[in-house]
This record gives sequence, structure tokens and C-alpha cells, in this order.
Amino acid sequence: MAMNLLYAQAGGMTAVINASAAGVLAEARAQGPRVGKVLAARRGILGILAESFHDCGGIDLDALAATPGGIFGSCRFTMPTEAEQPALYERLFAVLDAHHIDALLYNGGNGSLEVVVKISASARRRGYPLICVGIPKTIDNDIEGCDCCPGYGSAAKYLATSMREVCRDLASMTSRKGRVFVMEVMGRNVGWLAAATALAARDPDEAPHIVLCPETPFDEAALLARAEIQLSRLGYCAITVAEGIRHANGSPVMARSRGDGHMRFGGAGGEIARLLSETFDCHRHYAAPDYLQRSAAHWVSAVDHAQALAVGRAAVNYALAGRDGMLAAIRRLGDDPYRWDIAPVEAASVANLERRLPLSFITGDGMQISETGRRYLAPLIAGEQPVSCSGGLPVHCASKLPRLASRLPAYSGWAEDVILTAS
Amino acid sequence: MAMNLLYAQAGGMTAVINASAAGVLAEARAQGPRVGKVLAARRGILGILAESFHDCGGIDLDALAATPGGIFGSCRFTMPTEAEQPALYERLFAVLDAHHIDALLYNGGNGSLEVVVKISASARRRGYPLICVGIPKTIDNDIEGCDCCPGYGSAAKYLATSMREVCRDLASMTSRKGRVFVMEVMGRNVGWLAAATALAARDPDEAPHIVLCPETPFDEAALLARAEIQLSRLGYCAITVAEGIRHANGSPVMARSRGDGHMRFGGAGGEIARLLSETFDCHRHYAAPDYLQRSAAHWVSAVDHAQALAVGRAAVNYALAGRDGMLAAIRRLGDDPYRWDIAPVEAASVANLERRLPLSFITGDGMQISETGRRYLAPLIAGEQPVSCSGGLPVHCASKLPRLASRLPAYSGWAEDVILTAS
Repeated sequence: MAMNLLYAQAGGMTAVINASAAGVLAEARAQGPRVGKVLAARRGILGILAESFHDCGGIDLDALAATPGGIFGSCRFTMPTEAEQPALYERLFAVLDAHHIDALLYNGGNGSLEVVVKISASARRRGYPLICVGIPKTIDNDIEGCDCCPGYGSAAKYLATSMREVCRDLASMTSRKGRVFVMEVMGRNVGWLAAATALAARDPDEAPHIVLCPETPFDEAALLARAEIQLSRLGYCAITVAEGIRHANGSPVMARSRGDGHMRFGGAGGEIARLLSETFDCHRHYAAPDYLQRSAAHWVSAVDHAQALAVGRAAVNYALAGRDGMLAAIRRLGDDPYRWDIAPVEAASVANLERRLPLSFITGDGMQISETGRRYLAPLIAGEQPVSCSGGLPVHCASKLPRLASRLPAYSGWAEDVILTAS
Repeated sequence: MAMNLLYAQAGGMTAVINASAAGVLAEARAQGPRVGKVLAARRGILGILAESFHDCGGIDLDALAATPGGIFGSCRFTMPTEAEQPALYERLFAVLDAHHIDALLYNGGNGSLEVVVKISASARRRGYPLICVGIPKTIDNDIEGCDCCPGYGSAAKYLATSMREVCRDLASMTSRKGRVFVMEVMGRNVGWLAAATALAARDPDEAPHIVLCPETPFDEAALLARAEIQLSRLGYCAITVAEGIRHANGSPVMARSRGDGHMRFGGAGGEIARLLSETFDCHRHYAAPDYLQRSAAHWVSAVDHAQALAVGRAAVNYALAGRDGMLAAIRRLGDDPYRWDIAPVEAASVANLERRLPLSFITGDGMQISETGRRYLAPLIAGEQPVSCSGGLPVHCASKLPRLASRLPAYSGWAEDVILTAS
């Protein structure tokens, strides 16, 4: 009998999350009569609860796979336990039942895997025949059990490319006063994105000259010593700073008080740029790519894009094979040449964990990325994707999708709790 | 008799300044025996004074034209008059004479054109047969007499693309709390780059919803009113802020004092993000692409790249034709289809002027770019260039060039003045 699929996604966006959605839809179409309808919820679990669904029949998959952001929206929502909010689970399964959903494919990071685990357990308890499958996604690259996460390689490629390009600008503009350039990248707890920028340097004179990750405590004296050497050698110093770097006591570098009760606006990168320019009386420049780094679909990694598609496709196959509670994880089979495949990992074994950069990836002084780290990172940014443009700008898929009619009355029992906890 | 050329460049970098250098070298090679040797000074006028020259014979022009930054370096140096520093001019012409230079091709912005004018006048006064030609370059797009400036179109394309991509991210992450996104772009006095991001929006719901330029005084009440409408309609509001926006009294928005005698770090964009998030109690994100916007050679405008090459080529032809004191300016022949050519403009008539965004390019409320503005801007970001990559990163030309041996003794008479005024 044909299986009806429901796709949903949660957490922060990436440049290739839509490619995973396209992988799901492409595989579902390829499976012919084994798959019935494919619905997508608007805004993840919130869309399921609100019965806010799109029919995915008419979507142009090539355009979808080239579009940043998430066409089906997203949410940040901490899933309560069934004991805490039984009415929420009642509503959830009533909606699934009303649409004859047989499998839920949930795309997200560590927290979203917890949603997969909880819904799967609830379905078993209540005897609802639901297959729950996780699809990995996060630019933070911090899902345990998954060699790399779709979205990471593209953000990494964008940031490494940017650092490489800026290096040529810095080298052109040397002056006696000297110049510090700091690029602040995402990573509140993990240094994966910061680390990737090290790929921009193929010899020690190339940027970044220093990479600061949250995994090692911020050492101001060591930073100043290293930067001084670089400034006197080259006349400039380029530094990558992960937004979440911390002092040895655990307090974030970014949150130094302004003294008037407010925190200083701007992040750790601004602090580091200020510190260095005041110490060495040099020029400073501070770049904060912010959302640009996770939505730069004009410059994705072809490896990342292929993996994003592949985990979407694999999730459909896991659903058809009845592999409930599994994550479609990326497995590394070799470094050089890089080989990978998709293999199932128990979502319950990795949900809500956080994979930090191994200390073996960071040099002993905490200022650079080791050869071991570079070997891991290098293949993930490889390859370029063609980009369709119109008028000089990338072509994206249509942003508005029709919604399916509701089959259930609106249910407000859960609404207050859900809406108030969804940020 | 073969003409010996000297190329030099000054001011801020662009993604295509090397393409102009490649245009000079390509045209010089194509001219065969009409051109003798082609030298390039390291760091603009400072390199001429220091007799720091590269021979350009062996450079790979395709790789050069694809590399951001300026392979020959740059300087920021206010040229004194000959009355102020006669020894500097003596040294300058001694160096030119020692290398039998017949023409100086100087690439830069408004200030660099002043260098062209001053050296040309000095040559005439002293009877040195030197042809001085200006090559336009600036991401600020503020050279009078030049319809657009090489470097601008590529930065504009990068920023418009980034805003378009972030728009999809924002649309995916709507929440009840609302979200403000601010991208701060370069432009201390002019809003050309800010204006270009308006091309990202092809309907009023697309980002940027507001564009703030230095040409109109910052109107906080109008901004808040417009942002509130946008936030309530969509749940998010994306704003482009030129770094140099000013209050009606002329004081920069960025430089609000922190109250402890220091200026707040971070620019106008951070101020606007803070203002909106505090007023509307919404999330805020602030991107500052900084140097990334002027070095993104992985995503240049093909029109801009072609124009950068063309002004370099034209400068060689002007030199050969003896057109002293001319700027190789870009002239617009039509909007749709876009047509352009290169035409000479007297450097003396445009040096040190600053072309601001015409008020007709800004809507009456000062919050958006008009149709007139869009018509001007649209063709400048058109077309994509192929990018050669290795290991997932763009391939750039070699960064180190051999230097020619000096023919003159080092001269220190001017050194103090020059070095101390060069930042």
C-alpha cells in the first residue's frame, strides 16, 4: 500500500536545506506507487500542530534545490514531553491521522532529533503506525554520529573563500601603521565554521593567521604575542573569531559590559578587533557576515549540495523500509580521494548531544587548525554548483506555496503553550 | 619609437582592479613594437618615489584578471603641490627619467585623478615629455564624468545577491517576536552601494524593505514608522544602511558616544539594529560584510569585469595617442539594452569631486530607491564570470612578484614627509 509522507524542518537555515527537501520529493516521485501523497508542514512541528500543510506535487525541484532558506519555513521550539503536555500529542496524532500520514521526515539539528525521538516513542505507545526519520542539517556541523552535516560545507566554503579573497585586499593595502582584520563567524559553542576558514591559507603568510574557537579558552596574552609577530612580519594580521569564544572562566568574550548596564553591541569579533587596534595602535576592520554565511546559495559546496540531496533521498528509503527512529547520517569512507555514503544512526543515541571540534584539530597554542583538522575539512568545501541567474541575480523558486484545506477544527488547547514557547 | 609605460594604482581595492591592470598589459602586448617595456610601481606614487618597480613581462593575465586585491599594492597618499614639496617632484621625475618612462597610467578614484593632474602639470612645466592617463576605479562609484566606476558593479552585485539570499532565510524564520535584519555597506559619503541592494527586491515584500543613504538626513521617526508596518505585515524587516548615514545636523549616526569618552564600536548598521530591536522588542541581526564586499572576485559582475579590462586597454591607447591628462571614462549609450563605450574626460575637470547619488534615485520618503535609480543600476550587476577553482577555492595569481633593480641611489630627502603622510 502506498505510504503517505509528511516532511517538516526546524532550526536555523542553511544554503542547502531546500536541497534536502528536493531530495525527499525527488525520491518520493521516483518511487512511483510505493509513495502516496507527500505533504510538507509549514514551520516544522508548529505547522503540524496548526495543520498548516502544503501539497508538494507541483514544486520545481531544480529551482527548489538552488534556493537558500527553507521554502517550508522553520521554527525554534523545545518539544515538551508527553507527560508535560498530553494535549499537544493528542492534537499532533489527530492531525497525522486526519491526513493519513504514515511517515514523518524531520529535518534539523540536535534539538530536532529529540522531536523525532519523542514522536516516535509516542506513536509506539499509542499504537499509531508512524515511521519517524531524521534528516541532518546544521551549518554548525555539531550532530554526533554524522561525519558532517548538510549546510556546513557550503557555509565553510563561503567563509574560506571570503577569507582568501580578503587576504589579497589586505596584502595590497599595507601601511606603516599596520592593519588588523577580524571576521566573526557563527558558532556559539563550536568552532567548526571558524576552523574551516583555515583552508584559505595554503602557506603561513596567507590569511587567516589566527583562528579562535570556543573549544579552547581565550588567551589574550597569547593572541597579542602571535598578532604582534604577524603584524611586524607582514604589516597586517587576519583573524577568524567564532562568535562564542570564551574566557577561561567560561564567560563569553562578546558580553563585556559597557559600564552603563548595557552589553556592548557587536560580538566577540568586534572585541578582538578593538583589543588589537588599541594595543598596537593599528587600523582595524571587522566583518560580520552573519546570515550571509548560511544563505550564500550562489557559492555552495558541490559536495555539500550532493549530500543534502542524498540525505533527503535516503530518508524516504528509510521510511519505506520501516526504519523508525533513524537518522540518515553521512559516513566518511575515505579522505583522499574523499568517499562517503549515507548510513542509518539511531536518533535516540545522538539527539541533543553536541559535537565540538576535536582538540586534535586545533594546534597546541590554540591559535590555528592542525593538519588533522585540515584533512577532515578539505573535502567538504570541494566543487562548485552552476547558478542560474536573471538580471545578474540568482534565480530562486517561488516563495509562496498554496496551503491545503484543514480537515480538523482549529484546536486551541495547546495553542497558548506552543505559541508562547516558540520564539 | 616604442613608448615605455609605467602603471600604478592607489586607494581602496576592488574585485576587478587587477582586471584593469590586465587590460593595460594585454593592450600593451597587443600593440607590439609601439610599446616598449611596461613597468608597474609597487604601492602607487610611493613606489615611484621609492623606485620600487616590477617588470610585467611574465605575468599570466587570465589569472591576474580573476584575482581580487591589487597585485601591485596601493597607497593612500595626499599628493602635495610642487610648491610645497619641490624635492618630491624632483625625485619623481629623476626616477621616471632613469627608467625612460614615457607614460604614466594611474588607476584610482577622485584623489588619484588629482595625482594625474599634478604630475601632468609638473611634466609640462619642466619640459619632460610625459603622458599621464587616469584609469577609473572605486566601489564607491563617485567619480564625476564617468557613468559608472570599475569595481562598483561587482560590489553592487555581491551585496544585492547577499540581500536577496538573506531574504529567503528571513522569510523562513518568522516568529511572533519579529526580526530586524540590518546589512551595513560601505559608503561614507555616498549611497551608491546601499542603493544597489534595492535590486534584490523585485516585489515590495522582498528585501531590502528600507534603504538608508547618506544623501538624505536620517529621519528616526520615519524609519520607525516604516519598519513597524513591515514588521506587522511580514514579521521581519530587512534594511540596508550605508555606513555614512547622518543626522540632519550632519553628525554621523555611527559615532554616537558611549558616554565614557569612547565612540561606540560598530557602525551605523549596529545603531539602527539596536534602535529597532529596542523599540519593537524584536530579534535583531546585523551583518557587516566590510572588506568582503570589495574583494568578492568569486561573484563579480561580467559587465563590471569587462569595463575594468576596457578602461585599462583604453588607457594604453590614450597614452599612445598622446592624450595627456585624460581619464578613460565609461560612457552610457543606452539603458535597455545596456550599451557603453570608453571616452576621454579631462582629469582636471573631475579630480577631487565626489558624485553623490542623485536625489531622483531616492524615493520621496528617503527610504527606498526610485524607478529612475533602478533603471540606472540594473545593467551594472549583469552577467557572471566563470571562476577557476582548486580544492573548492578560487585560484588566484601568484602574490609575489620580483622587483627590478634600482638605478638611482636611495633618496631620503622626501622620505620623511612621504612616509609620515601615507597612512
